[in-house]
Amino acid sequence: MQADPFRGIPNTERLAAGIAALAAITDPEQPYTRRPFTELFQRGRLWLREEMEAAGLRATLDAAGNLVGRQAGREDLPPLMIGSHSDTVAGGGRFDGVIGMIGGLEIVRSLKELGISLRHPLEVVDFLAEEPTDFGVSTVGSRGMVGSLSPELLAKTNEQGRPLSEALAELGGRPEEVPGQVRRRGDIAAYLELHIEQGPVLDQEGIPLASVTGIAGIRRFNVIIDGEPNHAGTTPMELRRDALVAASRFVIESELVFRSEGNSVGTIGYLQISPNMANVVPGQAELIVEMRSIDPQIIDRIDERLHQKAKEVAKERGVSIKMDPLTDATPVQADPRLIEITTQACRETDPRALVLPSGAGHDATQIGTIAPIGMIFVPSRAGISHNPAEWTDMEDIALGVQAMARALFLADEAF
Amino acid sequence: MQADPFRGIPNTERLAAGIAALAAITDPEQPYTRRPFTELFQRGRLWLREEMEAAGLRATLDAAGNLVGRQAGREDLPPLMIGSHSDTVAGGGRFDGVIGMIGGLEIVRSLKELGISLRHPLEVVDFLAEEPTDFGVSTVGSRGMVGSLSPELLAKTNEQGRPLSEALAELGGRPEEVPGQVRRRGDIAAYLELHIEQGPVLDQEGIPLASVTGIAGIRRFNVIIDGEPNHAGTTPMELRRDALVAASRFVIESELVFRSEGNSVGTIGYLQISPNMANVVPGQAELIVEMRSIDPQIIDRIDERLHQKAKEVAKERGVSIKMDPLTDATPVQADPRLIEITTQACRETDPRALVLPSGAGHDATQIGTIAPIGMIFVPSRAGISHNPAEWTDMEDIALGVQAMARALFLADEAF
Repeated sequence: MQADPFRGIPNTERLAAGIAALAAITDPEQPYTRRPFTELFQRGRLWLREEMEAAGLRATLDAAGNLVGRQAGREDLPPLMIGSHSDTVAGGGRFDGVIGMIGGLEIVRSLKELGISLRHPLEVVDFLAEEPTDFGVSTVGSRGMVGSLSPELLAKTNEQGRPLSEALAELGGRPEEVPGQVRRRGDIAAYLELHIEQGPVLDQEGIPLASVTGIAGIRRFNVIIDGEPNHAGTTPMELRRDALVAASRFVIESELVFRSEGNSVGTIGYLQISPNMANVVPGQAELIVEMRSIDPQIIDRIDERLHQKAKEVAKERGVSIKMDPLTDATPVQADPRLIEITTQACRETDPRALVLPSGAGHDATQIGTIAPIGMIFVPSRAGISHNPAEWTDMEDIALGVQAMARALFLADEAF
Repeated sequence: MQADPFRGIPNTERLAAGIAALAAITDPEQPYTRRPFTELFQRGRLWLREEMEAAGLRATLDAAGNLVGRQAGREDLPPLMIGSHSDTVAGGGRFDGVIGMIGGLEIVRSLKELGISLRHPLEVVDFLAEEPTDFGVSTVGSRGMVGSLSPELLAKTNEQGRPLSEALAELGGRPEEVPGQVRRRGDIAAYLELHIEQGPVLDQEGIPLASVTGIAGIRRFNVIIDGEPNHAGTTPMELRRDALVAASRFVIESELVFRSEGNSVGTIGYLQISPNMANVVPGQAELIVEMRSIDPQIIDRIDERLHQKAKEVAKERGVSIKMDPLTDATPVQADPRLIEITTQACRETDPRALVLPSGAGHDATQIGTIAPIGMIFVPSRAGISHNPAEWTDMEDIALGVQAMARALFLADEAF
């Protein structure tokens, strides 16, 4: 064995061919789209299953619809797991989720070619439907694996009134067996995920790798601002209770709060006013405000400050403002040993590697509720993702795969 | 003849019965709706035609679809005209347009009962489709009467692809004869319209009547703000170009401009952001800004200040802001003699009567391009119109009809 056998990982041509093969299985009208529960998605999975078996993994579909490729370990231990997802948003990119899957398969093949075996069994998992679905649920498969895919979630319906459980069954999942197949603490030795950053930091810094400290929590509120709809031509300015003016004040004040806090971001991405006609003073505004941080105390503080701002704006503009909780995903910290391992693995691959939080959610968020998790990021050009323009240079993906192979090997020793 | 015969006008019971009769001809699912070109609208007009003839008017439908009830005058003069409209918006009220029509018929009957005859012929007109139509045209009939219903407007289609000309023909109008029937300057001696204020001023002041100085001009711009859509979880605050934050700044700045100018109002009633998803930093905002005043110089000044503010916000927030003209309806001044006449008529009816501009558009806007116009307003409770809750007390409507009868008599002398 040479001094640093990992320098030979990956076979970049094979890696690139795999990514291109999956990218070609797309809605031709809307590249690069492979929505879960569609025929295209199934075609992608058929290809993945063949790749898994060609790499020497035994491929099975678990009850929650996850495609699991497994190889045995030298010892009788719970498995190490590498995972991500092959589904995309509509008009999504070629790399989000995909590089974790194809990278995982490449690691299996490369380790075998290098004669490196692992103590632990290894599972490479394509989690079902990580992206938001038409059923209003995301990370469907990883939720199912850890016991967070409740009967209520399985009963959720899409626009056609079809329940998620039915779509899962059609895909080959077994909704009724989901509870019995739940993995519990101890069932997964360590979980590792390679993903694109989906943010601009690595690209801006010109650095190809980062180890991830954790996944930001997200708290969202639905905000309803009630003013008074009035005729835009006949209502004097001083008699108006314009819901859009109040909403605009709230947007401005919220942004000042977001900017004044470090280690967090906040966004108002959704706004709908009504009646939304040029000649009517807006009577109501509905908006969704979200705050993200890997520090739960920062989320609490922003939350409190926004509620205070809402009160001030309501008083100032003579409107009522109601804030209803929508989402509250607590931050997930990466496992301290896995942060150390992924950081070491990244720095052995490129000494400039950064250590970053993840602003986006991942399957790791779910798996983190029952197992130690660690992640490695590669750059997203201009921070763009969920877009056909999503791009990561192949050399950077290759470095990510190499770093992930190192991390897997280190975790195999440590866990 | 008694000292003030007009005190006997109107017969309030008859007036109330007429308004109730028309209100009963409504879409039962959505009171009070009588959309133009519908079967309900035609039922309303059948009733109106019978009422016109019962009042001694000769009823005809002109080429542009206006229902015209005419009586002869003592002299061979161009007619005085009283008009308004019997169509409503969807879910519109019982008074908007209707009181002008029913009030006009009541004046004809009352004057006859009092033995008061006019020098001029009198026409009471139900203008076709004053409210916005599915064809994207409003004040269809009054446009047709004055030569502003161009072939382009007649060719406009609704969602079913049907042209306005076809809908007009089905109603009994004769689109091809519209140009030949256009009335020109001198063809109408004076035009008077009784209408609800559709604003809150009279209601708030507790005063039942106002004479109208003119109808505000409306200028609208479509504003497109281009920032950059980004992942809401991964894009640091300092790297964002959030189109909603920029739009909010523009809304706030615009409102300050509107409030700082007198004799005008301004509104941003339409706003659409995209992609409008909770987890994406808004990349684009589209909004419609409008300014209204009866003084064209004020409109120009607001316009200039808003363009300046757009530049400042664009620079401050790193976005581009493009403003495209949408509508530019110049203000229509009431005729100075008719302002004097309507003011005198209102004050003889109630000495507290106000003198107000009209923020809303009316058929008078069109007729004002070829004839002297004057209007009288009665209160709208809480300023609400275009709504089932639209309300005016019957005593106030009766005072409005009395004032309009006085004004008609004064105009008959003066013109």
